[in-house]
Amino acid sequence: MSNTTSTHVQLIARPEGWPTPADFRIATVEYGELQPGQIRVQNEFVSVDPYMRGRMNDVRSYVAPYALGETIGGGAIGRVVASEADAIPVGSVVLHQHGWSDLVQGEATTFRVVPELPGVPLSLYLGTLGMTGLTGYVGLTAIAGMKPGDTVFISGAAGAVGTAAGQIAKLLGAGRVIGSAGSAEKVRLLTEKYGYDAAFNYKDAPVREQLAELAPDGVDVFFDNVGGDHLEAALDVMNDGGRIALCGAITSYNTTEKVAGPDNLANIITRGLSVKGFTLAAYLHLAPEFNGHMTGWFSEGRIAYDETIVDGIESTVDAFLDMMRGANTGKMLVRVGGSTAR
Amino acid sequence: MSNTTSTHVQLIARPEGWPTPADFRIATVEYGELQPGQIRVQNEFVSVDPYMRGRMNDVRSYVAPYALGETIGGGAIGRVVASEADAIPVGSVVLHQHGWSDLVQGEATTFRVVPELPGVPLSLYLGTLGMTGLTGYVGLTAIAGMKPGDTVFISGAAGAVGTAAGQIAKLLGAGRVIGSAGSAEKVRLLTEKYGYDAAFNYKDAPVREQLAELAPDGVDVFFDNVGGDHLEAALDVMNDGGRIALCGAITSYNTTEKVAGPDNLANIITRGLSVKGFTLAAYLHLAPEFNGHMTGWFSEGRIAYDETIVDGIESTVDAFLDMMRGANTGKMLVRVGGSTAR
Repeated sequence: MSNTTSTHVQLIARPEGWPTPADFRIATVEYGELQPGQIRVQNEFVSVDPYMRGRMNDVRSYVAPYALGETIGGGAIGRVVASEADAIPVGSVVLHQHGWSDLVQGEATTFRVVPELPGVPLSLYLGTLGMTGLTGYVGLTAIAGMKPGDTVFISGAAGAVGTAAGQIAKLLGAGRVIGSAGSAEKVRLLTEKYGYDAAFNYKDAPVREQLAELAPDGVDVFFDNVGGDHLEAALDVMNDGGRIALCGAITSYNTTEKVAGPDNLANIITRGLSVKGFTLAAYLHLAPEFNGHMTGWFSEGRIAYDETIVDGIESTVDAFLDMMRGANTGKMLVRVGGSTAR
Repeated sequence: MSNTTSTHVQLIARPEGWPTPADFRIATVEYGELQPGQIRVQNEFVSVDPYMRGRMNDVRSYVAPYALGETIGGGAIGRVVASEADAIPVGSVVLHQHGWSDLVQGEATTFRVVPELPGVPLSLYLGTLGMTGLTGYVGLTAIAGMKPGDTVFISGAAGAVGTAAGQIAKLLGAGRVIGSAGSAEKVRLLTEKYGYDAAFNYKDAPVREQLAELAPDGVDVFFDNVGGDHLEAALDVMNDGGRIALCGAITSYNTTEKVAGPDNLANIITRGLSVKGFTLAAYLHLAPEFNGHMTGWFSEGRIAYDETIVDGIESTVDAFLDMMRGANTGKMLVRVGGSTAR
């Protein structure tokens, strides 16, 4: 019989602005015996994502706020260590949304089995091969209607979504892909590893100036993970009929004041722009289409990725905060499978 | 032979902020003899519209800026007083874009004959039955995808586009239609004459407060003619999947400073909103569909309208400025046909 003691990270106070460690607690959860239909999963990786910040607030949004005193929900992947469900035997690898813990048990229906494939680290199912990659794909296709030849600008391009989105754009035929990131090293990776045609460090000079210089023929599609000055700069240079996919606005997630929007929104009118916000929940039906593309690209060696991995479930809050500050390149993950065998 | 002397209003300086009479001149234009294929038209009404303000600036936009020293182009309707074109005989009523003058002549192909119908003032072809009505129709249908039952908010509702759009929304099955305007009298007209279910005076209290109170179940479609605080207030109350048609942003047209946008743009993401700007030029193909609807509605007596009319081509600049300040209810027009017979 496997271990039933689990370490969870729980929200205990609603952050004002930047979260602090005091907003969370490390809790020990003791599970009871497995009931029929349940499985027990030893997590290998848990995901920290920008959208989680929104769920820490008690405001109307597209998903319910996290309850105080409960475990932070979110993507994780692990291996079944005990099973009372015929459909998911011990040893299976499963994806789930039970979030920040090293061990979890629950109804088998809340877990999804994924194949273990040679050369595919399990962590990728939380990133490029999973929701993160799908987010890039959906934003470019269903939301922005990217067409071959389009000039595409992606903000926060060295993050989990950005590294995937830039490559997907090129593979789908984008003409020129421009990215922004927050360090010289990330900018280098964008052009050398991720196929971006041009990239800039938004800390070097105003985004407006740098983007205008790199996009002399304008931008057709803007995939925004950042908001604020990036959205404003993009509105400056959007071509007539351009399309903006709003995926994230990380600049605003930890501010306590509301931040005024771009000063050039009227360009949306005069240039006939489409601006569409999205969260992935409404577009999960595109997963098979995405998987079809991505499986092929990945097996052909055409997909690069980075992961920024910290170890130990107790490091999850720090990992989350580091990710919000841009310390990561590619997907930020917490590895918990390396802990003691149970 | 008809008179060949015409009075035109021309732009002679690019306004900074609010235009002043000094930015314009009243010019006498002496036409030569009609050439084959040309017609001469005595205007009856010329139109003053918010979009003209943008064309007075020398900036990239969807139509070329007005040239300094030339006549202000725009919608007008008049009667043919001389013709060297078989297709358009003397006496025909024609719509055209030659703009602010009392008499104009040019190639017949730049004029479009419209029918004279009993009970239909010619001025309506510049308003509810023309581009203005079509703008309301396009914004609600092609841009915002309004569905029966939707709650619709229309800003600047007592203007030319707003008075048409509110009625069109109701006739197309909108559930609840809310409008904003700048005086108690206009607010009264919206609910008593134009079929709005609720309306408020944006000068009475913050738009955010008033709209939230009148839209307790949220807004599905926002048709924006105003921008600024109206867009911000709408973003507060938009329902998930809501659609915003950006038609105008009159608050910003005469500012010399750029104006920061709404502080709640992130709602576009979390609520999956679509924001689309439009100008009519790309949607003229919907004119027959619109005309089909509008002709029926109008003949059934289901369309109300107001016109704010001033007399004399020399009054055009004042009419334009008054319209920009909101002095009009419904369409603002300059009547020039009442001048001396020629």
